[in-house]
Amino acid sequence: MLTDFGDEYEAAMKGVILKVNPDANIVDVCRVGAHNIREGAFLLRSVVPYFPDDTIHVGVVDPGVGTERKAIIVEGKQIFVGPDNGLLIPPAKSLGEFAVYEITPSHPSPTFHGRDVFAPIAARISNGAHAEDFGTKTDSFIEIDIEDYEIKEDIISCEVLHVDCFGNVITSIPRGVIEEVLDQGERIALSLFGKSIPFSRTYDDVDMHTPLALIGSHENLEFAVNQGDASKFLGIKTGDTITLKLLK
Amino acid sequence: MLTDFGDEYEAAMKGVILKVNPDANIVDVCRVGAHNIREGAFLLRSVVPYFPDDTIHVGVVDPGVGTERKAIIVEGKQIFVGPDNGLLIPPAKSLGEFAVYEITPSHPSPTFHGRDVFAPIAARISNGAHAEDFGTKTDSFIEIDIEDYEIKEDIISCEVLHVDCFGNVITSIPRGVIEEVLDQGERIALSLFGKSIPFSRTYDDVDMHTPLALIGSHENLEFAVNQGDASKFLGIKTGDTITLKLLK
Amino acid sequence: MLTDFGDEYEAAMKGVILKVNPDANIVDVCRVGAHNIREGAFLLRSVVPYFPDDTIHVGVVDPGVGTERKAIIVEGKQIFVGPDNGLLIPPAKSLGEFAVYEITPSHPSPTFHGRDVFAPIAARISNGAHAEDFGTKTDSFIEIDIEDYEIKEDIISCEVLHVDCFGNVITSIPRGVIEEVLDQGERIALSLFGKSIPFSRTYDDVDMHTPLALIGSHENLEFAVNQGDASKFLGIKTGDTITLKLLK
Repeated sequence: MLTDFGDEYEAAMKGVILKVNPDANIVDVCRVGAHNIREGAFLLRSVVPYFPDDTIHVGVVDPGVGTERKAIIVEGKQIFVGPDNGLLIPPAKSLGEFAVYEITPSHPSPTFHGRDVFAPIAARISNGAHAEDFGTKTDSFIEIDIEDYEIKEDIISCEVLHVDCFGNVITSIPRGVIEEVLDQGERIALSLFGKSIPFSRTYDDVDMHTPLALIGSHENLEFAVNQGDASKFLGIKTGDTITLKLLK
Repeated sequence: MLTDFGDEYEAAMKGVILKVNPDANIVDVCRVGAHNIREGAFLLRSVVPYFPDDTIHVGVVDPGVGTERKAIIVEGKQIFVGPDNGLLIPPAKSLGEFAVYEITPSHPSPTFHGRDVFAPIAARISNGAHAEDFGTKTDSFIEIDIEDYEIKEDIISCEVLHVDCFGNVITSIPRGVIEEVLDQGERIALSLFGKSIPFSRTYDDVDMHTPLALIGSHENLEFAVNQGDASKFLGIKTGDTITLKLLK
Repeated sequence: MLTDFGDEYEAAMKGVILKVNPDANIVDVCRVGAHNIREGAFLLRSVVPYFPDDTIHVGVVDPGVGTERKAIIVEGKQIFVGPDNGLLIPPAKSLGEFAVYEITPSHPSPTFHGRDVFAPIAARISNGAHAEDFGTKTDSFIEIDIEDYEIKEDIISCEVLHVDCFGNVITSIPRGVIEEVLDQGERIALSLFGKSIPFSRTYDDVDMHTPLALIGSHENLEFAVNQGDASKFLGIKTGDTITLKLLK
């Protein structure tokens, strides 16, 4: 379960699930920023490789609830239930092949889809139901690109997808891209806001309270401060666009 | 489990429960404001309809711990264990008939009742024990009214029971009352602090960052801001008394 | 599971555990301050007496990840898996006899030991594996003393180990010490920053919004404010060293 709410709303969803399947083992992924579909897609994608096959994910970051947005089930190695707004596709795609089913809407439309639509469907699938029991296969669904960046010679523009609980700043640049760029030359530092930040392998390669860039456990380029808070240190928050200069 | 603490205190309670019943499936409802019995009663009531019959709730919002306040078990479709301070009655009542048992106190009195009294009793009930094994039936218990409001012609006074994780402001006015008031005329707006706020059906019926009033998923009147924080926008917090004027 | 992160990082660890043992019943203890090994050791020790024998704890407060610090399994009545930095020893010791095994490191070293080393080992132990399957017994491990205090006549110096969710300030002075000191005379108050604070048995022995000292449910001396926040009231935070004067 990954949502942008938590609290009593998640509790109601868990009650709904346990009513249908009393043996369900429910894990909270985390609470993402309100209405932040991109952060939700990124974080859900970052954890799915560690979950068992056939795990059923309920993802609810749903600013469009109550509008015409569709609801979907995404079936691959793992199963995803939630709104058709891009949230579920990057995690599903990262696991390989998948099919998308559009959930047939009920009338009248319920108020809280997480509790009234997604949780009961997820619970029934955990009991043996199939995606096609709830809707029809479709090729029409919303995709988002959570690895949005641009490289022009020495300049990289990217997005801050997430600031974690330590204040580490996680960007939209995947490991492969940064390794390729670094391999081309002897560049071992990035300039951000005029500060030179060394690229490193672990958090401890720099002095205490000193910033560094590294490939973190989310597998993207991130900025950290050794035993400090990079978000505060650098003045960067989730959703910001930042421009980096590669230093030789 | 609903408390006003969380953290290591809830963890100790969970340990106690799992020692007695290793198969217990424990769900956190949410953490309410410190000592806020009314908010706790409201939130617990808002989730119980979604939980299975025979769910056992441990509710610990207990400013009177260490005083003469009694401890109770409330037995209805679901079972509630906690302090006799009003917290457990609105949720139990919302599910229909119920009986209250006063827990026979132990000597010497333990320091942390959540961990030392309520959690072990809840766990033993989940293992098959009965309320009468821990005390005697009573008609004397504390009730609180969490739907406290007053209507005089066009003026409604009510209480803010809860501000949710999005900043939505949830009042003490239940759906029935507001629907009746709205049905009497063509009123479709409420005035709060001199601001006219339209009554709407979904969060998206107004422009972005604009306030609205609606019946939310807690089934009470609430104020929200489309993709914003109504608590900050309106300067209202949990426990406030607010006065609304119905606009024609 | 006790960590200084939570969120998506704990979720990945839970996925790893459920992949190995789908029946694992995972409980979050709490999230401690970033890199605060002493607070983590104290809080884990405060909850272990309430958990069943053979509970497996994964403790990850690990500022030294990526350095030469060892990883250990501590086997006693309950089992602890985590870094060799002192975190796991006070909780293990509080339960009686224990043995320490140094985990044989894998090559190349993984980036996130909580997810890639500790969680899989804990899960395999929950499935029946033994500590000796993952390393060799050792007498060489790091111990920390979380009951660090000094008494000179009427003056006690101690450390603030934890500020809880209510703002209660929990010190490094255990119950036994404070009871002995209080027994020697008729002292019933402590002076802190020139304020006289009565020693009491329950939170309600003083007026509302008034500070008191007591033995709390962590079994150490703590400062509280009746229905208030002692940390804010006294201006004290986790990690502070404070000096108390016993008043006759």
